Amino acid sequence: MTRFLLKISYDGTAYHGWQVQPNGITVQQIMCEKLSELTKERISVTGCSRTDAGVHANEFYCHFDTEHALPEIAYVKGLNAILPDDIAVIACRKVASDFHARYSAKSKEYIYKFYDGDVPNPFLKKYTLSVPVKLNIDLMAEFCEKMVGTYDFSVFSSSKRTVTDTVRTVQSCSVAREGDVVTLKIAADGFLYNMVRIVAGTALDVSNGKIKNADIIDIINSKQRERAGATLPPHALYLNKVIY
Amino acid sequence: MTRFLLKISYDGTAYHGWQVQPNGITVQQIMCEKLSELTKERISVTGCSRTDAGVHANEFYCHFDTEHALPEIAYVKGLNAILPDDIAVIACRKVASDFHARYSAKSKEYIYKFYDGDVPNPFLKKYTLSVPVKLNIDLMAEFCEKMVGTYDFSVFSSSKRTVTDTVRTVQSCSVAREGDVVTLKIAADGFLYNMVRIVAGTALDVSNGKIKNADIIDIINSKQRERAGATLPPHALYLNKVIY
Repeated sequence: MTRFLLKISYDGTAYHGWQVQPNGITVQQIMCEKLSELTKERISVTGCSRTDAGVHANEFYCHFDTEHALPEIAYVKGLNAILPDDIAVIACRKVASDFHARYSAKSKEYIYKFYDGDVPNPFLKKYTLSVPVKLNIDLMAEFCEKMVGTYDFSVFSSSKRTVTDTVRTVQSCSVAREGDVVTLKIAADGFLYNMVRIVAGTALDVSNGKIKNADIIDIINSKQRERAGATLPPHALYLNKVIY
Repeated sequence: MTRFLLKISYDGTAYHGWQVQPNGITVQQIMCEKLSELTKERISVTGCSRTDAGVHANEFYCHFDTEHALPEIAYVKGLNAILPDDIAVIACRKVASDFHARYSAKSKEYIYKFYDGDVPNPFLKKYTLSVPVKLNIDLMAEFCEKMVGTYDFSVFSSSKRTVTDTVRTVQSCSVAREGDVVTLKIAADGFLYNMVRIVAGTALDVSNGKIKNADIIDIINSKQRERAGATLPPHALYLNKVIY
């Protein structure tokens, strides 16, 4: 048995997230089908993260096991020849049999993209969250600095979460503007359910003055979900990097 | 009667081009419908160019006449509120009644985008032409220089063209790489049917060595369509700028 790790990228617009679901096509389902088609084996694929419906991935990793190992490049070329246009394999490498796409990950980085141009941009509409007023980057940067550290982040988490340990370490968090696109970037050893979408929603409230930066640590410590910002929509969220 | 000029932008993926057609939805049709809906008048819209099915526009201009002029900003805000996500109004201004979106244009600029990355990019697939080998920018730049000038460009034109005067002046033509995206940019006083897609196809043949730069002027003068490159697909073509 040989284990391979695939680095993929996908436009999540058409998918119900990564994880196989009873209703709706998922990226995991497509990857299993296409790997099985390529190898004539029944292959199952394990992902590094459960991305939600509509979320994109600039980088996403998944591993699979096979009895009949092919050269690494054969998986890249072979899969790209049969995958739909919105999923691509970037790289493939053989890994140890105890390597795990999810549990071996040391750090993940997500980005959330806002668009605050005066007029709509038809090319960015599906890939950014359009906001009606100019974002205040200085306030958002100050908010991002406060995110870094080890905290019980349950205030930034959906009530649907199933984990009990809600302490995570945010390793870096920053915001940058490029024209009318403002990108919030956050890296952590792990994320709670909906965490990045709620952190982004809170950053938006900080920008528009609804939440004060001086209150952020207090809001985190309060664990009162309603004191944080809204859960922003998934189409502007990207898994950006995974470090093993 | 007041004439207004709208500056719009659209993702052409879902449209059968600009011009109203018996089969398939066009951008012109949507603009007429939405302007009529906004103004409660029956409005018809005249475009600066007939873009083909699938072609995009970073900038496109169209004019319309109305008996009940609204403030310019009302058209921008009002239309953007009811237009689909893939069409946006960027600006609106009152123009003289003899101003014409098409005939008053002094120059138009198109861009054609190639993608030559080693692995597919799911976010660029619909918006660039994926080519299997690295493009040779130096050869393409030399080709672009040869395009500039006043020529009978019929060799770069579909046999479906209806015009008899096939002399045009290319004002500028250049190529630039940004990562794995190579953009060919061409401005002229006018373009023949399919001209940019055939110029781009010829640039591609120059890059891969099928056509020599030394033969380009000879090929133009020959007027033999088969000596130029293929008509490349529309999804990587953008009307980029119009100068009045």
